Formats: sequence, structure tokens, C-alpha cells
Amino acid sequence: MAETSAKKERIIALMHGADKPGIVARISGWIYARGGNIHHADQHHDNENGIFFQRVEWEPAGNVEDEIELFKHIAEGELGMETVISTSSKKPKVAIMVSKFEHCFFDIIMRCRMGELNCEITCVISNHEKLRQMSEMLGLKFYCVPVTKENKEEAEAEQMRILKENGADLIVMARYMQILSPNFLKNCGAPVINIHHSFLPAFAGAKPYHQAYHRGVKIIGATAHYATADLDEGPIIAQDVTTISHRNTVEDLIRKGRELERTVLANAVRWHLQNRILAYKNKTVVFD
Amino acid sequence: MAETSAKKERIIALMHGADKPGIVARISGWIYARGGNIHHADQHHDNENGIFFQRVEWEPAGNVEDEIELFKHIAEGELGMETVISTSSKKPKVAIMVSKFEHCFFDIIMRCRMGELNCEITCVISNHEKLRQMSEMLGLKFYCVPVTKENKEEAEAEQMRILKENGADLIVMARYMQILSPNFLKNCGAPVINIHHSFLPAFAGAKPYHQAYHRGVKIIGATAHYATADLDEGPIIAQDVTTISHRNTVEDLIRKGRELERTVLANAVRWHLQNRILAYKNKTVVFD
Amino acid sequence: MAETSAKKERIIALMHGADKPGIVARISGWIYARGGNIHHADQHHDNENGIFFQRVEWEPAGNVEDEIELFKHIAEGELGMETVISTSSKKPKVAIMVSKFEHCFFDIIMRCRMGELNCEITCVISNHEKLRQMSEMLGLKFYCVPVTKENKEEAEAEQMRILKENGADLIVMARYMQILSPNFLKNCGAPVINIHHSFLPAFAGAKPYHQAYHRGVKIIGATAHYATADLDEGPIIAQDVTTISHRNTVEDLIRKGRELERTVLANAVRWHLQNRILAYKNKTVVFD
Amino acid sequence: MAETSAKKERIIALMHGADKPGIVARISGWIYARGGNIHHADQHHDNENGIFFQRVEWEPAGNVEDEIELFKHIAEGELGMETVISTSSKKPKVAIMVSKFEHCFFDIIMRCRMGELNCEITCVISNHEKLRQMSEMLGLKFYCVPVTKENKEEAEAEQMRILKENGADLIVMARYMQILSPNFLKNCGAPVINIHHSFLPAFAGAKPYHQAYHRGVKIIGATAHYATADLDEGPIIAQDVTTISHRNTVEDLIRKGRELERTVLANAVRWHLQNRILAYKNKTVVFD
Repeated sequence: MAETSAKKERIIALMHGADKPGIVARISGWIYARGGNIHHADQHHDNENGIFFQRVEWEPAGNVEDEIELFKHIAEGELGMETVISTSSKKPKVAIMVSKFEHCFFDIIMRCRMGELNCEITCVISNHEKLRQMSEMLGLKFYCVPVTKENKEEAEAEQMRILKENGADLIVMARYMQILSPNFLKNCGAPVINIHHSFLPAFAGAKPYHQAYHRGVKIIGATAHYATADLDEGPIIAQDVTTISHRNTVEDLIRKGRELERTVLANAVRWHLQNRILAYKNKTVVFD
Repeated sequence: MAETSAKKERIIALMHGADKPGIVARISGWIYARGGNIHHADQHHDNENGIFFQRVEWEPAGNVEDEIELFKHIAEGELGMETVISTSSKKPKVAIMVSKFEHCFFDIIMRCRMGELNCEITCVISNHEKLRQMSEMLGLKFYCVPVTKENKEEAEAEQMRILKENGADLIVMARYMQILSPNFLKNCGAPVINIHHSFLPAFAGAKPYHQAYHRGVKIIGATAHYATADLDEGPIIAQDVTTISHRNTVEDLIRKGRELERTVLANAVRWHLQNRILAYKNKTVVFD
Repeated sequence: MAETSAKKERIIALMHGADKPGIVARISGWIYARGGNIHHADQHHDNENGIFFQRVEWEPAGNVEDEIELFKHIAEGELGMETVISTSSKKPKVAIMVSKFEHCFFDIIMRCRMGELNCEITCVISNHEKLRQMSEMLGLKFYCVPVTKENKEEAEAEQMRILKENGADLIVMARYMQILSPNFLKNCGAPVINIHHSFLPAFAGAKPYHQAYHRGVKIIGATAHYATADLDEGPIIAQDVTTISHRNTVEDLIRKGRELERTVLANAVRWHLQNRILAYKNKTVVFD
Repeated sequence: MAETSAKKERIIALMHGADKPGIVARISGWIYARGGNIHHADQHHDNENGIFFQRVEWEPAGNVEDEIELFKHIAEGELGMETVISTSSKKPKVAIMVSKFEHCFFDIIMRCRMGELNCEITCVISNHEKLRQMSEMLGLKFYCVPVTKENKEEAEAEQMRILKENGADLIVMARYMQILSPNFLKNCGAPVINIHHSFLPAFAGAKPYHQAYHRGVKIIGATAHYATADLDEGPIIAQDVTTISHRNTVEDLIRKGRELERTVLANAVRWHLQNRILAYKNKTVVFD
């Protein structure tokens, strides 16, 4: 029956590794031979670095776990690729870190409610109390962990305890105004997506809208990237921009930028949740 | 030697037909088995209509003509696909039809000179003398074929004679202000790309910038499409838009629109020349 | 003291009427002579129709009410203009009409909470119960008025009663999926802003994303306009678009369109609340 | 007669200086009292720096030269403003500096031919012979002045001699791949507009498309600015951007960037020729 078949689970595999002829033929031939049905497949060759990238989404004929196990033998064992494998029924766990600005926070929450982001928000961690009431009203667990210069190490340990307790496959910094330490990024157990309020690499660092205003640019932007130990230097996932003029004050830039921050962050999170992003050499391949 | 191998000819195949499992595996397996090297491959499933589309670009190990012949046996004979096949060394012949507006005309010419469009301009056909001097200065054959209500059939016959004499794999209407008859479109021997100065389907027909001005829209656009017997109804290839405000006069709209017309038409022509477009059911698949 | 002066009330006047020399000089001279301080002034001449438009925002030296009274004497009496006058301390009352789609609804609510829209939401009117819980959780009065073919007249009477009871300087149709009757629009006592999910005039009427998908356009859009008795024909306030490709399903179009609908509607509402829009002859002048 | 009056000369005045109440009233009142007809007026207050900016375009009742003389007495003498005054009949002289890339060069030339840029191109100066033939075919004076490390001072002296001989109210660097010395910029006798192929301040300096490719940004841009002694640091006039993806090679970036460079440079030149730009404190006010 169509209804039942529409609900059949799909496997989504991301893979990358040294490029060589025949990889696409091998993968597509293997899936076809086992009676699988490929719904989407996309690949990319980085000719400069000799790297092959592929994302393939298919409905296996048999048991999903077995298929994944066998697929890994082919992709990793035989072809020497690294893989990230997900399934259509998996609902990743997401933790949100936020300070006082609420636009990205609201936006992520509402997109989850509307089914636009396929995930479960397991906890909200903030260094301020401001968003507790709203979070709890919306049925979300809220943790306030104040951060100061003095207690930073201890605060991050507490944050990691909360993440572990609630589970997190992805951490979203929805305008969290603290720098995460290399130690946290290494040990928090999940990739971290951050939103920076400029079109990086322009205006890295603090107060980018003020920097943009004083430089007199005619365009401002926002950038979602994976957080790495090098501040504002992580692999860029998504960017968007909007035009400004001499008439716009810093406050106008902040307001116009909020639109960008919301949509850019949401796109990056959605692509990550759909297993569409491969980060390598400080760049990303986004199979959108 | 790298130099020699860099110049090796590639085959570019476009194919589409009834969707069924295993097509990608069959094609990629076949190319790989014959020692070919796939540089790009892209596919699309139209699930609503059960149609499969693919563009594949590869460097064959052996003779190009033989490879094409054998490929057609697989793609057409075995898989039941329709194919359009090109090669990297082929330089398509392009005829330009133009009236008096020169921006799209200049733009196409200059892009050819700069190597952005891989084609040979075999002739310029106009219903006015205005662009003769510039065409001839630029080394292009120029034909003036005046068109009136009375002589239209005869004029089109003359145009078709010119096209046949000079050769045309593609006809570009670079703001040619006459409607081509169904008879011409059927018998001219090449696909025709037209640029319409609105974001179709809005403001079809005459004077779209005036229509846009009087409706008070805040955005204007341009649309490149294949010309068909149904005026302004052909498959859309490319569109772009720009914002306007109450301050803009009809003249401003015309000026702003020229930018759009140039880039939209150039994109459509480039994609067509690179064998990237499949038109079906009044829509296009553009493998860009 | 700076603090006090920063809070001084401003008058915002919109005016339009038959164009003639000296209007700007008269208005600016009058304000200056009375010790007023002009913060912004913008004007527009529609030369085709001989109409002059101006928006001027100033801080009067004396009493605000007196200044407004005297200003009207000049602008209306002496210069023959129509005026719409507001003040910086006025917080307009807004009623939201919504059906089941919640993205525009949430968006408007959140922008109010963040101070981006300077208004008071006095009530939410829906033809479904779906958004009651969320509305009430957010502290908003919610009224469900089911609408059927049979009870439409009665339902609209009830809606007008609710609007009157709660007050509404502006009615926002945040994806309210019913057509408001000419009688309602005439008697509801406030302008109505609607969001249509296409770049009008393309794809007016029902299911615009489906229409766009089947026509094969490469760009989709959204349009905010004042609702008038002619469906989808009212003066356009704001439009925005985004690109799509053959890969996008109708569902993708709906998702991508939501972004546009939210920001386009929010811009239109913000400009209206800031007294920046003059509608005339089915067009708008937006002093943004 | 309408025809005659349509051709009446207009004065276009740009002015800026210390902000104070009553400037708009004084200017508009003065023009009105003398029987002038204001067609456009636009003003801007930089509240942070206390600077007032205005552009006003009017048709004087009497003699244009007298009106300009008297206007300067008011604007400069009485109000303490700096002014730049132009008239609608004035056709500024433009010199183009270019190296080998021809897209911006062709674009500027064609826009002049089509009447989009109101100027006279008095000479083309290049450090290569490549564009001589095309220039001369188009009826333009072409000067080749080779530049090396050793002869730079001398070469610039020669360039300045050519500029003086042919006249230049504006110098356009249409992808001129040499750095102009502070001495040249000080003594060349005209403002210089440059096009930089990145969204400054990102990727200043050499090979910005390569920089962008290696940083993995998702958006590239172009920036037109006045050239100053600080390389790539001059006041920004116009910027535009386009999206890229992991699929794009450096060559794709260069091709996509050409579109931006052409339109961004053309906008900057058009605004300058229309006396719409005021540069101050390393920023610009553009009355577009």
C-alpha cells in the first residue's frame, strides 16, 4: 500500500575520501543489486585536493541496520571513505545555547514546532535568566549557567554535564555571547553551529554591526559556521546579506541583521539535521 | 603528458525518459567498465510524472565517435531514454536576431569575444539597419530583413534561407521585436531562446515595464525561455528580478531591466551551449 | 537634560494632494519659524498625475496637540492636502486574523515582544481553534469565529463586534484563509493588510505555489498589500522573491515561501505603523 | 511650449556642512522666492557627527550662471556649507584606465553609446596594447603607457600629461591592475573611481577570488570606491554580491564576479556623473 511504503525508512549516507574512478558505479551498483531504491544522490569532486564527496539517500529492500552495516564495509573497508550515516526516522537531539537576544532562539523553536526542523530540543542553556519563563512556557528544559572570567572552566564543566544528561547530537549557539573554549569544543560530544553577525571574514570579532557602520559598507551579512578553536574561523556553512545605505543607523543594521541571522542559522541547522554537510579543510560541501 | 591529457575530448550526454531503478548504476557502470573517467554527473527524478533526467560528462578511454555510438545503444536502445549528445570540442553555431535595442546584442557579442560563451556567431539578422555598422565593424555578417504585416511570410522564408546558408544550432532573440510564426519555429531548424522583459507569467505581452509601472509592483524581472507557438508561454530557462520603488519612472524601469535582460539571456544561452538544459512538459530541468 | 529631550514627542505627518511650487518651502519654513526641529523629511512628486507627497517628522517646541491643530490648518486649509498625522508616543492597536498556518502569526507576535513593531495586539481572531492555546499562553485575547458559506455575513458581523470591542487601528491578515467581503472592508473601521503568497500579479487566486510549480518558474515571491474589494488587486506595499529550481517540490516552495511571507508582511506592518505609507490610485508611496 | 520647457537647464547642487535648524527651509524658501521649480530634493543628517547633507535639483526662472553664483553666496557664505554644483547640460569628461581585462571597459563604453552614462570619454590609458584596436575601432583615443617598477614615476607623469591634454573630470579604473601612487592621486586633477573584486573589507589586496575560494565563503562580491592613498580603504560607493557553492571553481568565481564588477562600477560612475555622491570621513552619502 502506498501509505505504508511512503513511511518506509530511508538511509542517508555522507561519505568522502581519496578520489578514484568507479566509486559512483560501485555504490549505485551495490544498492541496485540489493534491491534498494535510490531517491537522491549527489556527488562532488575536489580536483585541487583529489577528494571525492557523496551523499546518497535510499530505501533498502531489507533490514535497515543490516544494510548500514554492509554499506560501511563497502564504503569504508573497500573504498576507504569516511562515512556519516543517518536514517529518515532518526530525530536528532539538539541543545540550544543562548544569552539574551531572543530572535534566533524563538526562530529555532518555532521551526521545530512547525515541523520544519526534524529534531528534538532537549535543553536550553543560557548564561542569563531572561529566557527561562518563555522556555518553560513552551515546555523546554531551561538551565541558567552564569559565566564569568573566574568561573569559566567550572561553568563549561557544568554545561557539559547538562549536555550529557539531556543528550545532544548538535549544539546550536543561537547568539550565545560567550566564547567556547577549545576544551569545551573538544569534549562537548557534538558539533557546534554558531551564527556570526557579519559576512565573514569581514568584521570578525566583537560588535560587527558597529564595525560595518563605521567602515561605511553598503551591504551587511550573517554567517553560520561550525565553531572551532580559532574564533570566527570555522568552516562556513551558510551566508546571506542585505543592502544598507547611509540612512541606516547602527540600530537599523542590528534590526536588518536579525532577519539574516535567523534564516542563515535555520538553514545551517536544517542542512546539518538532514545530513547534508561535509566539513573538510576549513570548508564545507553542502548538498542542498 | 598533463598538457595533452588536459585537452582530451569529453562527451556530454543529456538524457531523459521513464524512470526505473538502476539507470544511474547502469550508466556509471558502463562508462567505468570501458575505462572512461566521469567528471560530472547530475540526475533528477520528477516523481510526479515518473521521469528520470541525467546529464553526464566524461572522458572516454577510446575513440569519441565510437563511444557515442555505443552509448546511444545503451541509453536509447536498452534504457529507452531520449538523448542529446555533445562534445567539449564542438563549437555550436549561433544566429542572433535583433531589432534596435542593442544591450543584449552587445552583451552576447562581448561574452563570445571574452570566451565566456563557447560558440561561433554565424550571422546577425535584423528588421532594421541600425546595427549593421557595429556588426560589420566587429566582423559579423549582418542581414537586414524588414518585416511588415504584408510581407511576414516571405520575410520569414528569407530569414530561414539565411539561417540555412550560414548555419545555426541555436537562434537567440536578443530583443527581436517581432513575433515568430509557428511555421518559422517549426521549420527554422534550431531551438530559439527569447528574452522577455518581465518575470513571466506576470506582464506577458507588450510593454511589460509600462504594465509593471501602472500596477505599482515593487519588483521587476526578466525571463529567458524557449520560444514556442504560444507567445510568452514557452519553457522558462532563467529569471531574475530587481527591486523598484515609487520613485522610479518607466524610464528607470527600462534601465534597470536592461541589466536583468542581459544577464538572464546570457545565462540561458550559456547553459544551452553547455548542453545543460532539458525542456519537457513546458518546464525545464537546468543542470547548472 | 539629554535624557528628557531624547524622550520628547515627535509629530509624524503624511500628506498628499495637487502638486504646486513652494509646498516644501512653506512646510519647512512654518515648522522652523515655530521653533520645531525636523528630524526626517521626504517628499515625492508623481509628475504623471501631478500629485505631491510628503512625510515629515519633527519635534515641536510647544504643545503637541496645538501644533497638530495648527499644522492641519496649513496643510489642509491653506495647501489643500489630505493628511494622516501620528505621534511618536502613540501605540497603534492591531488585530490579527489568522487561520491555521502559524508562521506569520508567530512572527508578528515575536516582533512585538522584541520591540520591533511598535503596537499593541488587542485581539486574535481565527476561524479555527488551533492557535488558541498558544495565543492565550502568550497573553493574547483569542476569539474563534467559524466561517461557512452559510454564516459568512453573520460571522463577519461578529468579527466587527470583536474588533470594535477591543479596538483596532490596523487589521493584519496573517494568512487568514477567508475572503473578506466588500461590506466588511468598508465597515471594519481600519485598514487591512494581507499577505499573498506569490509575486502579484502572477498567480493571483488560490494555491499560488502549486500554480508556480506547474508553470515551471525559477523564482517565487510574496506580496503584502492593502485588502480591497477586488481580490488580490489592492495597492502593493512590499514584495520579495527567492530562487527555486527543478529540484524543488511544491513542499519546498511552501517552505521557502514562508520565509518571504514572514518578512514581507512584517515590513509592510512596520511601515504602516510608522506612518510611512500613502496609498493612492491602487499604488503606494512608501517612505522607507 | 512644452518641448522648449522640457529642455530647460537644471542646476544640481550637492552641499554638506555643520548641521543646524532651518537649512532646508532657507534653501527651499530661497529657490521658491526666486521663481525656481524644485524637481528633486533629498537630505540627510549624520546625527553622530552633526553633519547635514543635501542634494537639490531645480529649474531656475532666470539665468543659470547668475543663479549658481547667488546660490553659492547663500549655501557657502551664509550657511557655511561646502558645495559641488553641476548643471543638466554639462557633459563631464571621463578618462578610462584599464589593463587587459576588458569586461568593465566594454561595459562603460557601451553604456555611454546607449546614453546610460551622460559623459564624454576623452581617452583610454592602458599599460598594455591589447585594447588599442578595439578602442580605435570605437573611435576612442588610446594611449599605451607601460609601467614597470623602475619607470613608475615617469609613467605616472606621462599619464597625468595625457589626462591634462585630453581633459578628465573623472578617472575610472576599469580593472587597471596597477596601484596609483599617492602623488598621482593628489595631482591627477580628478576623483578616481576603482572597482575591487571583493566585498571589501573582506579580501583586500591581491587575488581576492582566490582568497575567497580558499576561505570557503558562500558569497562573493565587488566594491566600487574612490581611490585613496590607502589601498582598498577609500570611501565605498557601491557593492553587490552573488552566491557561490562548493561546486564553483576559482574560474567560476571569476566569471560570476565579472557580472558584479560591471554593474557595480557602472552604478558608481552613473551616480558620480549625476552629482549624487558626497564622500566624507571615509564613507559616502549616495542620493540615489
